[in-house]
Amino acid sequence: MIDVPALVAQAREGRPRAVARLISLVEGASPQLREVMATLAPLTGRAYVVGLTGSPGVGKSTSTSALVTAYRRQGKRVGVLAVDPSSPFSGGALLGDRVRMQEHATDPEVFIRSMATRGHLGGLAWSAPQAIRVLDAAGCDVILVETVGVGQSEVEIAAQADTTIVLLAPGMGDGIQAAKAGILEIGDVYVVNKADRDGADATARELNHMLGLGEARSAGDWRPPIVKTVAAKHEGVDEVVEALDKHYAWMSEQGELAKRRLRRAAQEIEAIALTTLRERFGSLHGDRHLDALAEKVARGELDSYAAADDLIASVTN
Amino acid sequence: MIDVPALVAQAREGRPRAVARLISLVEGASPQLREVMATLAPLTGRAYVVGLTGSPGVGKSTSTSALVTAYRRQGKRVGVLAVDPSSPFSGGALLGDRVRMQEHATDPEVFIRSMATRGHLGGLAWSAPQAIRVLDAAGCDVILVETVGVGQSEVEIAAQADTTIVLLAPGMGDGIQAAKAGILEIGDVYVVNKADRDGADATARELNHMLGLGEARSAGDWRPPIVKTVAAKHEGVDEVVEALDKHYAWMSEQGELAKRRLRRAAQEIEAIALTTLRERFGSLHGDRHLDALAEKVARGELDSYAAADDLIASVTN
Repeated sequence: MIDVPALVAQAREGRPRAVARLISLVEGASPQLREVMATLAPLTGRAYVVGLTGSPGVGKSTSTSALVTAYRRQGKRVGVLAVDPSSPFSGGALLGDRVRMQEHATDPEVFIRSMATRGHLGGLAWSAPQAIRVLDAAGCDVILVETVGVGQSEVEIAAQADTTIVLLAPGMGDGIQAAKAGILEIGDVYVVNKADRDGADATARELNHMLGLGEARSAGDWRPPIVKTVAAKHEGVDEVVEALDKHYAWMSEQGELAKRRLRRAAQEIEAIALTTLRERFGSLHGDRHLDALAEKVARGELDSYAAADDLIASVTN
Repeated sequence: MIDVPALVAQAREGRPRAVARLISLVEGASPQLREVMATLAPLTGRAYVVGLTGSPGVGKSTSTSALVTAYRRQGKRVGVLAVDPSSPFSGGALLGDRVRMQEHATDPEVFIRSMATRGHLGGLAWSAPQAIRVLDAAGCDVILVETVGVGQSEVEIAAQADTTIVLLAPGMGDGIQAAKAGILEIGDVYVVNKADRDGADATARELNHMLGLGEARSAGDWRPPIVKTVAAKHEGVDEVVEALDKHYAWMSEQGELAKRRLRRAAQEIEAIALTTLRERFGSLHGDRHLDALAEKVARGELDSYAAADDLIASVTN
């Protein structure tokens, strides 16, 4: 048995190996998962969680790395969670496991972690928030959650952040691709990266048009800014940080921050509850109860709704 | 209130409007859904359910229509369920709502229905089997379930059939696309449609190679046949029906038919149970119980696992 309180204390002192070990515990559904979560709960809620998403090739990792640099200049402790739902690999080294993050690999105030889906229903909704909580408890001021790839899962993860950055790059027919992927609606801050390339202004204009940013809004509404960057040269990155600061201030004033965190917590609770119940169905399957119900349904002796009622009753009594 | 037993009796006489009305009831989650399912249960289990899937453009609708013609020549009553998970439209007319099905629109022994996802978790897993059950109870000998488009949902629906046909067409780089979509593994019968075009033999060979059909198999194993068709000219369609007959006979002999139907029933029960529980969480949300839990989690007073336990307990007591 791992001494969870001692491990959490070490993580709070900022020891990378303790942080890594805790993330592995919450990611791997360890028997001590519940103990870890209960110990972490009162230590969390301080970090500012920023999601980054966008199509492949827009420069998400480079942008994340540039944001880490910017926040480190402010003396902040930074956590990075790179989530790849399509990757069959899970876990990974805490430090220096991503090439573009190498420059931060030796910085003791930066925690970097790659994470893959556990490949079952609610897998990401389930494990990403827990890893965020570990980084939060470890004293990170800012946690950058970068999603690799595009898809419904990425959208969901990015939408779980306090603030979501949607990244685009010029000349990729990117606006349309982003619209298709459903990521255009979720941005609080839009970044046109690789802005030294041809077409950056056109992309920004197109985006402005697609988002209807020219239209009148009510006072108090958030108007998502479009920031142009060349992340590889650190150009425009301070402007992104400034936009994030403004969004954070706006959310705090409007009560939006509390609202988003509440929604996030509700979704997480629901995901855990559904996964738990599904696992109970699974063990019932082992117990042949679901099989027996299925046989009755297949023979027409029972309808599938009545069988579902029976299944629910059996896992919950 | 609808007189469900009377409606079911009319459907069993083969009245199209009664069948359409019953499908609408099971699709729309009517308050009488449970009554309908309970009434249908003892009347089902007779129909042979065939799934058709494949990339866009391979000729799924034309092939479905040709199969309807072939089965009608045998005097069989045929049901067609065209499922489009990406379509925002649900329902649709029972008869003649699809252009390629026009030739069967006035045939009283053919029931055709389009169906879209209800857009929530388990939406299709939930409503497609119920519509199949209505068609089954209405005396259909064969039910063809055609999935429009490619994706995980289509694969799941097609895999719910007794027999799954995977359609391909020459010269579309189709083998690779099909492999990507994960539909290559699920076929019991493979059809290379548009076989009068260049490359049909190459596609069949490529498929043969990808499926490892040249390799030795155990006696008693099913060896999926590859049939070439020109569905628009009704060429090769009788061979497809022959392949389906053989697969049905093989499944019956090997106990595979019962096994598949059992698995299908188990998946359906599980999907209904999870959706039911999710809906209960939803009404709790209205009752502010989930909100209250989320607030505690957001404030760090409770961890998300303990909150999930509480949520499960509250919906099940």
